[in-house]
Amino acid sequence: MEQIVSLCKRRGFIYPASEIYGGLNGFWDYGPLGVLLKNNIRDWWWREMVLCPPAGPDGHPIEMVGLDSAIIQNPKTWVASGHVGGFADPKVDCKACKSRFRADHLKVMELIFIDGEHALIYGEGEPNEVLAASAKYIAKLEKAHGQGYTLSGVQPFTHLNAEGRAKVVCPECGQVGTLTEPRQFNLMFESRAGAVEEESSKVYLRPETAQGIFLEFKNIIDTTRVKIPFGVAQVGKSFRNEVTPRNFIYRSREFEQMEMEWFCHPDEALKWYEFWKAKRMEWWRSLGVADSNLRLRDHVKEELSHYSKMTVDIEYKYPFTAPDFGELEGIAHRGSFDLTQHQEHSGQKLDYFDQELQLKLKEQGASPEDIKAKSRYVPNVIEPASGLTRAVLVLLCEAFTPDEARPSKMFLKFKPQFAPIKVGIFPLVNKDGMPEVAEKLYLDLRTQFTSEYDAKQSIGKRYARMDEIGTPFCVTIDGQTLQDQTVTVRDRDAMTQVRVGVEQVAGFLRERL
Amino acid sequence: MEQIVSLCKRRGFIYPASEIYGGLNGFWDYGPLGVLLKNNIRDWWWREMVLCPPAGPDGHPIEMVGLDSAIIQNPKTWVASGHVGGFADPKVDCKACKSRFRADHLKVMELIFIDGEHALIYGEGEPNEVLAASAKYIAKLEKAHGQGYTLSGVQPFTHLNAEGRAKVVCPECGQVGTLTEPRQFNLMFESRAGAVEEESSKVYLRPETAQGIFLEFKNIIDTTRVKIPFGVAQVGKSFRNEVTPRNFIYRSREFEQMEMEWFCHPDEALKWYEFWKAKRMEWWRSLGVADSNLRLRDHVKEELSHYSKMTVDIEYKYPFTAPDFGELEGIAHRGSFDLTQHQEHSGQKLDYFDQELQLKLKEQGASPEDIKAKSRYVPNVIEPASGLTRAVLVLLCEAFTPDEARPSKMFLKFKPQFAPIKVGIFPLVNKDGMPEVAEKLYLDLRTQFTSEYDAKQSIGKRYARMDEIGTPFCVTIDGQTLQDQTVTVRDRDAMTQVRVGVEQVAGFLRERL
Repeated sequence: MEQIVSLCKRRGFIYPASEIYGGLNGFWDYGPLGVLLKNNIRDWWWREMVLCPPAGPDGHPIEMVGLDSAIIQNPKTWVASGHVGGFADPKVDCKACKSRFRADHLKVMELIFIDGEHALIYGEGEPNEVLAASAKYIAKLEKAHGQGYTLSGVQPFTHLNAEGRAKVVCPECGQVGTLTEPRQFNLMFESRAGAVEEESSKVYLRPETAQGIFLEFKNIIDTTRVKIPFGVAQVGKSFRNEVTPRNFIYRSREFEQMEMEWFCHPDEALKWYEFWKAKRMEWWRSLGVADSNLRLRDHVKEELSHYSKMTVDIEYKYPFTAPDFGELEGIAHRGSFDLTQHQEHSGQKLDYFDQELQLKLKEQGASPEDIKAKSRYVPNVIEPASGLTRAVLVLLCEAFTPDEARPSKMFLKFKPQFAPIKVGIFPLVNKDGMPEVAEKLYLDLRTQFTSEYDAKQSIGKRYARMDEIGTPFCVTIDGQTLQDQTVTVRDRDAMTQVRVGVEQVAGFLRERL
Repeated sequence: MEQIVSLCKRRGFIYPASEIYGGLNGFWDYGPLGVLLKNNIRDWWWREMVLCPPAGPDGHPIEMVGLDSAIIQNPKTWVASGHVGGFADPKVDCKACKSRFRADHLKVMELIFIDGEHALIYGEGEPNEVLAASAKYIAKLEKAHGQGYTLSGVQPFTHLNAEGRAKVVCPECGQVGTLTEPRQFNLMFESRAGAVEEESSKVYLRPETAQGIFLEFKNIIDTTRVKIPFGVAQVGKSFRNEVTPRNFIYRSREFEQMEMEWFCHPDEALKWYEFWKAKRMEWWRSLGVADSNLRLRDHVKEELSHYSKMTVDIEYKYPFTAPDFGELEGIAHRGSFDLTQHQEHSGQKLDYFDQELQLKLKEQGASPEDIKAKSRYVPNVIEPASGLTRAVLVLLCEAFTPDEARPSKMFLKFKPQFAPIKVGIFPLVNKDGMPEVAEKLYLDLRTQFTSEYDAKQSIGKRYARMDEIGTPFCVTIDGQTLQDQTVTVRDRDAMTQVRVGVEQVAGFLRERL
């Protein structure tokens, strides 16, 4: 993992935000290569979800539209969604050093102090950082997660103080017994909007893009041609004031999401849940992620969010979770929770009149009362919600390939479609007419593929740099080019070169990209 | 303008944010068509600035990289940039009704009360809302803005109270003499980041994307292959707590920017300023904006921002400014202000060592001291900064074309490249084998062009709707299609139809899009 973080900084994928001011914990900037990689993933998701979504279970196209809702919405939104009341993490403070820690991570812990029923783990964040747990609690975890669950390194926890509280060591300052009981800490960033001080309202930066979609459900029904079932998709930034941002961009305070809400008849929700579960796994595979690094994990009942009837996570084997997996995308069956909540809080009707169902019931000879009752309903929602910035991390992890045979000792084996730079164009030496040919070729190629022209340093160093940033092809203009109009095209993975006519390069690359 | 706002809502371009909760002043959601239009403009800017930037004055490609920096940065950023101290509007409160008004708009007013030198206008925001001004002040305005400046409707202002203050009528409650003197009101949204209450820092939502670029100047120099001169470009959201958001999405509190910072040698700054001035005008024309609706306006000295040596605005004739123009893009010569400020506040060296210049000076026989002094410098910056959301508004205004001959009475005459939907595909009737052919064609076309399939309502209504949303082509599958494999292709502007072989439709559209 350190290698990846270091490469990202060194080659311009991801920098710590405000680094010249000492940074800001939990915030990252996407550099020249990072933004290209991120845009490639974003555009592919948009294409596969909005522009060319998959065929439905009946083989016909499904209906999907895009949206870009505001980050700041009327604050009542977050009361209705449950975020003002419930979107909080139990946190623990150290009275001595004032550090604050997140006390919940359902995979490995629940609460920090003893609740009479079972002694609780201390530790925070990821599995390998669990410090200790009572034997009883260890048994509970194993029961919940099955045999496959790894608890290596977790010691039974025995230190109790007089009040029956765990004498936990503060992981920051090392003092014993200085940690408070867990308190709720709301994760939403707050601000104030409006110019009149007395009337300005407290607002929140959205902690998820999803609610923006629910807010516009009625407008979309009223102003577009969609009918149930249909989906609304959006990509955008969200903000969570995480207690402990960590693992590079995996858990950051500002991040980017790709969320889709699929509105359907309640009786069909399960069918669509299974549909999206399969389609989303296919999508992750289409990014070039190895099947063995992906898995589906159903949430156990205790894990479910307040809004969810059923959730499955698509998980990835991150370097910092391996051999275990960590969250990548959640596919949630949200039932009618959100629309019902917004309906109640706004006083606006958010139900749906299903004309086709009405017609069908009529044909089936249903009674007028029955038809009326059944053809108007609050839709259910299936939500595949994934992190765009997390997808960037996954592609970086997946692509990172050590290779002692190369000068760079590694290369990024991106699926060519997602590589930030598709082709490097190099004059072998920066004279003898080579730059002129190379520049002309570069100007042509860049209209079709993201291209980089580089005339500096030795050709070996230029190849090594392109290996490091995962460029699948390098085109070199050399002495022979000037005689026979051919160039060499180097393949990143095989490290082989073939000669191709300069006029044929674009076609050659098009076939392979 | 009302027609455009109403169309945007009715057809799903732009909705008021949180409308079911009564909205939130200054925030907008981009609906299914709005997000497509916005993405088209965003992608075109990105292509023309980052992927295929224009050739430089010497005919060779210029160097440009992209970036996506965080919205929340270390708060010291905004102290250094001058935003914490200076990014404020003078505001005036009404003591009676508590309304707050923005008291500055350099085009039409400066301060609200009399300062002994000249009496001041009341009115706020746009020219047609100016209520009154002293004769002396009117003369001053005319002097500053030249003969072309329109002051129609502005009455000489005469009501003064005993203290020599203007007895201004509050535009909200109508009371006289209830307005306070102007006070500074900072436009940045504030929040707090960090989990430890005692140590959490006040942070700001960025009021411009530009500073994120300056923060990463050093990282980009160190980790990419660029050398001076080069540009860094980014697209992203910014936030300003405007006193009075107005004119639809023209002045909103959350908006999207497209900004580029061009770093160059101080001696070359003027050359690049002129270069970008010309290139940016070309870009706006490439969107299909009529030349007569665009103009360049140099800022007079009093108008210049604290960081700027010289600024020119590209202005557009908006419906709410006509016959006058309003800001669309600012091209500023920022000198070395930003890098110098960040250098001083961060203690990090942000100067540039210019190897090529060093070599050149050596060749010219300069003294070693001279070479050393001249080849290390803080670059100057030319910044073309435009609003993406403002560009959406401009394309909507520009495209809106009344046409009594059509059922829709108007159509959106987008340049086809930017139309949210490129082609509508319609089976004439939803039976007789037509939907099957139409669906197959739709599935093929949508992989190349943003397409919409619609089988509902009469064909006339479907054409009318496509006119309203500016779709350049409609393909209809009719009875004849089943016999001879041809379809009709309707042209939005000419309203004519031609028959094209169903296999030739993609090629036909490609030629025209």
